[in-house]
Amino acid sequence: MELIDGNEIASAIVEELTAIVSTYRTSKPCVAFVRVGEDPASVSYVRKKEKTAGRIGIESKLFVFPETISQDGLLQEIDSLNQNSDVHGILVQAPLPDHMDERTVFNFVSPEKDVDGFNATNLGKLCQEDEDAFVSCTPAGIVELIRRKGIETEGKRVVVLGRSLIVGKPVGMLFLGKGSPGNATVTYCHSRTPDLERHTLEADILIAAIGRPRFVTENMVRPGATVIDVGINRIPDETKKSGYRLVGDVDFEKVAPKASYITPVPGGVGPMTVAMLMANTVKAYEKSAAPS
Amino acid sequence: MELIDGNEIASAIVEELTAIVSTYRTSKPCVAFVRVGEDPASVSYVRKKEKTAGRIGIESKLFVFPETISQDGLLQEIDSLNQNSDVHGILVQAPLPDHMDERTVFNFVSPEKDVDGFNATNLGKLCQEDEDAFVSCTPAGIVELIRRKGIETEGKRVVVLGRSLIVGKPVGMLFLGKGSPGNATVTYCHSRTPDLERHTLEADILIAAIGRPRFVTENMVRPGATVIDVGINRIPDETKKSGYRLVGDVDFEKVAPKASYITPVPGGVGPMTVAMLMANTVKAYEKSAAPS
Repeated sequence: MELIDGNEIASAIVEELTAIVSTYRTSKPCVAFVRVGEDPASVSYVRKKEKTAGRIGIESKLFVFPETISQDGLLQEIDSLNQNSDVHGILVQAPLPDHMDERTVFNFVSPEKDVDGFNATNLGKLCQEDEDAFVSCTPAGIVELIRRKGIETEGKRVVVLGRSLIVGKPVGMLFLGKGSPGNATVTYCHSRTPDLERHTLEADILIAAIGRPRFVTENMVRPGATVIDVGINRIPDETKKSGYRLVGDVDFEKVAPKASYITPVPGGVGPMTVAMLMANTVKAYEKSAAPS
Repeated sequence: MELIDGNEIASAIVEELTAIVSTYRTSKPCVAFVRVGEDPASVSYVRKKEKTAGRIGIESKLFVFPETISQDGLLQEIDSLNQNSDVHGILVQAPLPDHMDERTVFNFVSPEKDVDGFNATNLGKLCQEDEDAFVSCTPAGIVELIRRKGIETEGKRVVVLGRSLIVGKPVGMLFLGKGSPGNATVTYCHSRTPDLERHTLEADILIAAIGRPRFVTENMVRPGATVIDVGINRIPDETKKSGYRLVGDVDFEKVAPKASYITPVPGGVGPMTVAMLMANTVKAYEKSAAPS
């Protein structure tokens, strides 16, 4: 079994991006972070993204709005960022308050600045295998892990557990495409799939993105499979100061010995998501104008 | 075995649409057909669509351009249709000449008038399960056949043979969604899938969309499966005046006795594609303004 070290691979990407950004002479890429309310997890995620941007030389602007802002009010703010030519990428941190429709808000971000890849146009371009697409960051990060570890996907069987818009659906589409990684036979399973093990046991590459702590157990995994764990779940742990610890959707201790490759939680897919956001921001900058 | 009669179901849809359109008092839906060159199959497809539109009471305008028109020239023509508020739907008949990039042309049609559903934005909205999406007509027609025959999909296994942008990918996404039909476990197979039978033999619903005449044989189909044949292939036939006949991707004579439901070719999915185009045009009209 080999651990897929997401921190190490994400660091390599951050270094590569830093080298690219250092060649830009007259301006730098700029990403706008939009946060609504003070949810502690959102505050911490956005701070982590700001830090990584700073390390690379990407400028970032933080816009914080009160939880009480109306959806129309938020759309107006996004519109002014869409119009602002100094801003190359826009990230609206999820989750949004209950009185908003996330799909409407994400679809309102200009497709050219949609570095999160949540916009319908970018999702469609991903399905079209258009290189111009901004691919949503977690699926892009998963594919990048597979690519950099040199794991073969052509003719292999990929099983995706979960059909979310942000992870499940797009990651399956990426492995189904004609690129490399790609050309896999892809099966989508979810909460309505009976006999889950029947499918997961056939997977050469198993992607768990269902948000249920340690749901994937060793009896569900074929010996020698590659296991990608997208889940980030808090479970109570009295030995920790915080009173909890993070676990994935995979029962790591039991599954790892059977796998050929496996991502840990934390330190697997998570850091890749941030790295791919930065890669998308650099791409948005390069598309916006000839860098100089 | 029960035959799924696409002509009969498409006729029912045409009748329903005719009744709806007859209630519009001051204006009628209008679809623009754009054809480039004189490919006989394209001429015949467009004529069939014009006829069906006429029967429903949908106005149609035909725009024919010479094969030598540049891509930019065609995009300008589409732009003027995008701007024309009397036109509610635009269909650019495929295939386009070799000097054009079909994806670029299809993506240029305004998403609000994209009754063919080939635009990236509509494909993304389909993935987002947005009811506003124009779903491309063949996948929408397949789902409608399944719905009207009352075939259960929840928890069932759907296997899609083919990963095209126009049929394979979107039809799988529709069966994966949370609607009804929907909630299926979906597997995509294609030319790079080894041991195809291993997958197809597990299908409760098998969708063949690979464009290879009579490729699906009886040893690939589970007894009792529903078989949807999307292929339209010409094979030589000396007994016909034309010298050819149409067959699907399924070896109908041999597969039919094993299936519980099966679509014939012709007369299965084909007529549904035209009917769903008309349904999309009525939808575009209703979205464009309050009908009156």
